[in-house]
Amino acid sequence: MLTFPISEYQDRVLKTKQRMAENGVDVLLITDPANMNYLSGYDAWSFYVHQMLVVFIDEEQPYWIGRGQDASAARFTSWLDDNHLFPYADSYVQSTIKHPMDFVCDFLKLKRQDQRAIAVELDAYYFTAQSYLSLVKGLPNATLLDGTNLVNWVRIIKSDQEIAYMRKAATIAEKAMRVAVDTIDEGVRQCDVVAEISHAQISGTADFGGDYPSIVPLLPTGERTSACHLTWSDHVFQQGDPVIIELAGCYKRYHSPLARTVVVGTPTEEMQYISDVVIEGVNTTLDMIKPGVTCEEVERAWSDVIATYDIQKESRIGYSVGLNYPPDWGEHTASLRPGDKTVLEPNMAFHMIPGIWLDHFGIEISESFRVTETGCEVFVDFPRDLYVKPHIRLA
Amino acid sequence: MLTFPISEYQDRVLKTKQRMAENGVDVLLITDPANMNYLSGYDAWSFYVHQMLVVFIDEEQPYWIGRGQDASAARFTSWLDDNHLFPYADSYVQSTIKHPMDFVCDFLKLKRQDQRAIAVELDAYYFTAQSYLSLVKGLPNATLLDGTNLVNWVRIIKSDQEIAYMRKAATIAEKAMRVAVDTIDEGVRQCDVVAEISHAQISGTADFGGDYPSIVPLLPTGERTSACHLTWSDHVFQQGDPVIIELAGCYKRYHSPLARTVVVGTPTEEMQYISDVVIEGVNTTLDMIKPGVTCEEVERAWSDVIATYDIQKESRIGYSVGLNYPPDWGEHTASLRPGDKTVLEPNMAFHMIPGIWLDHFGIEISESFRVTETGCEVFVDFPRDLYVKPHIRLA
Repeated sequence: MLTFPISEYQDRVLKTKQRMAENGVDVLLITDPANMNYLSGYDAWSFYVHQMLVVFIDEEQPYWIGRGQDASAARFTSWLDDNHLFPYADSYVQSTIKHPMDFVCDFLKLKRQDQRAIAVELDAYYFTAQSYLSLVKGLPNATLLDGTNLVNWVRIIKSDQEIAYMRKAATIAEKAMRVAVDTIDEGVRQCDVVAEISHAQISGTADFGGDYPSIVPLLPTGERTSACHLTWSDHVFQQGDPVIIELAGCYKRYHSPLARTVVVGTPTEEMQYISDVVIEGVNTTLDMIKPGVTCEEVERAWSDVIATYDIQKESRIGYSVGLNYPPDWGEHTASLRPGDKTVLEPNMAFHMIPGIWLDHFGIEISESFRVTETGCEVFVDFPRDLYVKPHIRLA
Repeated sequence: MLTFPISEYQDRVLKTKQRMAENGVDVLLITDPANMNYLSGYDAWSFYVHQMLVVFIDEEQPYWIGRGQDASAARFTSWLDDNHLFPYADSYVQSTIKHPMDFVCDFLKLKRQDQRAIAVELDAYYFTAQSYLSLVKGLPNATLLDGTNLVNWVRIIKSDQEIAYMRKAATIAEKAMRVAVDTIDEGVRQCDVVAEISHAQISGTADFGGDYPSIVPLLPTGERTSACHLTWSDHVFQQGDPVIIELAGCYKRYHSPLARTVVVGTPTEEMQYISDVVIEGVNTTLDMIKPGVTCEEVERAWSDVIATYDIQKESRIGYSVGLNYPPDWGEHTASLRPGDKTVLEPNMAFHMIPGIWLDHFGIEISESFRVTETGCEVFVDFPRDLYVKPHIRLA
């Protein structure tokens, strides 16, 4: 029932310990649900309460700490044995008199690990300020270090099985995007299109089902396309509306995101122009990607193209992608932007999404890809185009 | 385009300032996306980067601080004027050399508010330990206080319009649960049932569309029903499988959660027995709810029923519910559990979910309700029963 062979999890733990050793970390407290899953397999919607995976540098198996009622989920989904599951009582949940991190402190004392160098993920979503303060108070003899993104940097190079999962996710993304382009039309409600997208994302294909993406379908419409992170409403599409669709296919928590833009009716010349620039930029940039190139060089290829059209874009054009949980499918390591000197290696994977948002509309056309030995493999086969409904392309 | 009249937002800000005054807080930094929405209307999937609403006790409008590309979402969805939007440059996003909270510190200095009593939501999901440490470092002259759940406690009493939204959410929940019960059957894949549920949740009704619930449909199946927070797989349902369905309808970010249990084929006597106990417990408990009763008294009514059957349940049986964002639809204020002395008042709303999880299966039958002047109003009309597919009820 595990998503990967135990040996793959053990290999990930080993690599994590190597990074711990390099950083002088004896004990790593992991609260990022993607990192918990990566090392243990643990997969449940329980990250709304405090939970954790604890890696001791001198022990083989990590320990899971979570709410009592979720221990059985750890039994079903992780490779950890029962001796490595430490559930806390329900009275710790959202209590005003005690905190789950008090339980973690007691656990570390029980294991005689409370005087060591302990790293926490200071800037991870579900590690709150109170979690930190409770650890500081309860571990007076520990040296607390910053372990933010330590495991994320192990995740950046995917195994072949992880890449196979991302390809399956891409097949689902293709299907969902096809449904989106097919159903958007004048008079159709936004929510009805997203319902079809979500159905396609979850049902997947006849051969394999889909998992929930870490971000719901984004569907800014009309002038709201200038605001990239809006979701949908129950308004109907109208003549002239541009519609941005950003979605992902997800398979066993692995994502292949994809964005396309549709215009209902006739695109303005400006929309077609910006779209053509974005497509040229994406094509040119994908062509130069290969091992040895840095992230900032990738961004520069894009910037050089759009500069010839007198367009500037301030934000990054992409990020490392793969395994994740809400609220993000990005991995928070390498970004395609100026200053990022990460060198591309085979089996790194990115979502390149060079959206251009003007005052009154925006265009997004994106691709997810992996770096190969000689170039890059784009995961989906979905033509880069400005889609027009009905299907009449502006000459 | 606002979800509520501006006067309702202003009233919420006023109540928040009253609580701030009672707690000696001059400046409140709000990072909980539900609290941001509650006070400003702001609604976008942008909580995966650092963002904030800042309330000064002596100013009428809060300030929005977020990523540059999301400022237009604030313009579209909030009642704040342009002078109250402070976007930060994209180079702050997931940077290793600077943090968005550095920008917040600069903002507070610019506004000459950096020497005041500043409260932060220490235990809110998206307020990380690093956020706190960056504020501590950047605001040496401030007094930092804990504002966890300060706004949440304002949210606990709903306006009539909020209740109207929860009723619409309930209509969607009913529809989604009906689809679930209808489609679960031997040989059907779990993912295909969840695809139908999600479709129903988002398309809503002919009169109004649905929003995305803060939690995806939970669908533990077979012995996995003993683990309440598992999602789905692409396996098919088999004879004898119990299936727990926990879902919510969502309308404009307001939730009405609902859980039911289905058995494929013939339930065991034990399943039917536990189910009957849960139903009796829910019925008895709902009957005693009215203003003036405390949360722990509600839980005791439940405990008294199941004790007569020699069953114990450790975890809380419910929580305040309403407006929210992933990863939770609960409000983190009142819980139906021993020790919670919150007194029920009209227009408080709860999800009562007294699941019972044994070693090899679990049963969940839940209701969302609001407290009325004289009792309670259950939001959905969905018979409390153990559903059997095909529809043959055990005698």
